[in-house]
Amino acid sequence: MDIYERSLKLHEELSGETGAAARRHISTNEDLSALYFPGVTEPCRRILEDKENIYRYTGKPGTVAVVTDGSEVPGLGNAGPFAALPVLEARAVIYREFGGVNAVPICLNTQNTDDIIDTIAKISPAFGGVSLGCISSPRIFEIEDRLIKALDIPVFLDDVHGTAIALLAAVTNALRLSPRNRRSAKVVINGAGAAGIATAKLMLSAGFSNVILCGSSGIINKNSPGLDSPQREITGYVNKDGLTGDLADAIRGAVIYIGFSPSNAVTEEMIRSMEKDPIVFTMTCPEPEISPESAKNAGALVFGAMCGDHPNRIDSTPVSPGIFKGALFSRAVVINERMKIAAAEALSGLIGDSDLSPDHIITDVFEPEAAFLVSRAVSENV
Amino acid sequence: MDIYERSLKLHEELSGETGAAARRHISTNEDLSALYFPGVTEPCRRILEDKENIYRYTGKPGTVAVVTDGSEVPGLGNAGPFAALPVLEARAVIYREFGGVNAVPICLNTQNTDDIIDTIAKISPAFGGVSLGCISSPRIFEIEDRLIKALDIPVFLDDVHGTAIALLAAVTNALRLSPRNRRSAKVVINGAGAAGIATAKLMLSAGFSNVILCGSSGIINKNSPGLDSPQREITGYVNKDGLTGDLADAIRGAVIYIGFSPSNAVTEEMIRSMEKDPIVFTMTCPEPEISPESAKNAGALVFGAMCGDHPNRIDSTPVSPGIFKGALFSRAVVINERMKIAAAEALSGLIGDSDLSPDHIITDVFEPEAAFLVSRAVSENV
Repeated sequence: MDIYERSLKLHEELSGETGAAARRHISTNEDLSALYFPGVTEPCRRILEDKENIYRYTGKPGTVAVVTDGSEVPGLGNAGPFAALPVLEARAVIYREFGGVNAVPICLNTQNTDDIIDTIAKISPAFGGVSLGCISSPRIFEIEDRLIKALDIPVFLDDVHGTAIALLAAVTNALRLSPRNRRSAKVVINGAGAAGIATAKLMLSAGFSNVILCGSSGIINKNSPGLDSPQREITGYVNKDGLTGDLADAIRGAVIYIGFSPSNAVTEEMIRSMEKDPIVFTMTCPEPEISPESAKNAGALVFGAMCGDHPNRIDSTPVSPGIFKGALFSRAVVINERMKIAAAEALSGLIGDSDLSPDHIITDVFEPEAAFLVSRAVSENV
Repeated sequence: MDIYERSLKLHEELSGETGAAARRHISTNEDLSALYFPGVTEPCRRILEDKENIYRYTGKPGTVAVVTDGSEVPGLGNAGPFAALPVLEARAVIYREFGGVNAVPICLNTQNTDDIIDTIAKISPAFGGVSLGCISSPRIFEIEDRLIKALDIPVFLDDVHGTAIALLAAVTNALRLSPRNRRSAKVVINGAGAAGIATAKLMLSAGFSNVILCGSSGIINKNSPGLDSPQREITGYVNKDGLTGDLADAIRGAVIYIGFSPSNAVTEEMIRSMEKDPIVFTMTCPEPEISPESAKNAGALVFGAMCGDHPNRIDSTPVSPGIFKGALFSRAVVINERMKIAAAEALSGLIGDSDLSPDHIITDVFEPEAAFLVSRAVSENV
């Protein structure tokens, strides 16, 4: 085997590994000549000949850029790109540990929409996918849409779609404990930012028919003042009964409440006004909007939250590693609604009837099968 | 210790590691709450309070962006950003393995100078340094200059300055076998691209007084036609005797020949016209400009090359990992000429008099002390 054949073999092996494992490959000058010059010109030449070979001889197919501009860090607001780095590093650890995905934190020193899109497009060649997070709404949807059009690799909003998928899985399992179903259950989502809108959309795609979205000035409908573009778009699908009023009006008779509001809007009284045995999820951080004790005290059958001490932790962590694992494995170009719904089904299906209880409606990221089953659901629905 | 204190401790530990080692830190939901939300808001808040804390709570101080636009890949020319990825991945393995530096390959989908500078500046927050390579001359010097001004982290041209430093170390040791010294030895550098110019500059800074640079139209002097800006700048320092003519005229009576020309310009006859016991280095790839046998046959005392089978391998590999290790450790903002000369001295000093021979004038990257001694030389000269 000459140095060029050795280089091809070595770079092909490297492509399947996160970097650290590579060290065993180089212990002699001959190894170095295969890894680096002159050998490396051969994998380069193969890619030059056929761009597709980048998926064979480099780490691109297993590497995800985890990107933010720091404009919306939970609990901190517009913290900027430097202060957001610990979130990206944590996310990278989670992707790597649970999805086997090599994730690279990229903090963008700009909050201009055009510049964000342009910069991500310019650094995209070495990456197999892009994970966006901690970027403020409504810009995040425009950034997602335009990047999907510009790139031939999947783009996924970790804290938006990842959270929406986890919520769909949680709601699905909570309803297994209830006489209601997704056609009849009234769902109130409080918070019309990116995660609220994405959750409403995904639930509607998954067969929920009565979803009400509340913003800072109450129930959102076609005539609500000051709607941004993604909010306007969703008015065609939510609030089928044309309700008006504030959160208290919306929540009356609801089965499911999902709160993204940072203002602790939901009260025990409101929960008491819901249908019997309501389902309450609060996604605010670092503290939940209402404590599990208060929610249970007001009659909640199921309580789940993103932060705080409680049994049902709902966040994107059991979702996103599997989403990228599956999308990268299947060379998906986009992550569509069907894949997201399948991912939620895979996640909810992990809890069998005998394990299901009000305090156990969602598996966490430590469930060994979670990432694998989510990834399989994604790759089977490309 | 509450979740926020645990998060600070965990993120501080993570900051000193390349990512893979992090897995042992998360095996429970409590770990996850410290690594990610809600705990992670605390390291974020500390950085928001004092930007300097990014060096304490993130991997920034140990992470280098390894960047190219693929405009000049040795042996392939302008191969573009996709085909250049294997070179960056190999470089990342070398940085990690020998310098303990976490290196991230970034291929830029643009070859426009302004866009390259702008994109690197925009992605810089998560990186502690920038390594540039496989970018064509003379643009590379403009990109380097402007990035040094724009960024507060060190920028280093791996294949330009790294090679120049390795050559200075090799030349230093070769002269220990010769009656000549750096004041008296005539040096001919053939190839007036980035590496040739950087090598000439560094040798002049290090005390060589008679350096002649040849380009495609022969010996370069103030009146040479068609010089680019970096070439024009160096005419003030090279060719102190005002020679004119072609490579054959330049090389007559020279002690040292360093060839970057891809055209196999140097011949046995030319080597025979050099001073007795000449030193011949050829940096072309994948094949050296002249074979070691031909060079020795023509009287070369010392032969070294970047590629090919021979004892003296000269390239940036024993240099760059230590350069970044030292620059990152000492929080250097630039890598100046003094640091480069000290790095070359550290490298040449690794070969004691009893080990020195015509076939052993440079240590390779596998020498366990190389990266450490280079890094110490760099950090002592900030």
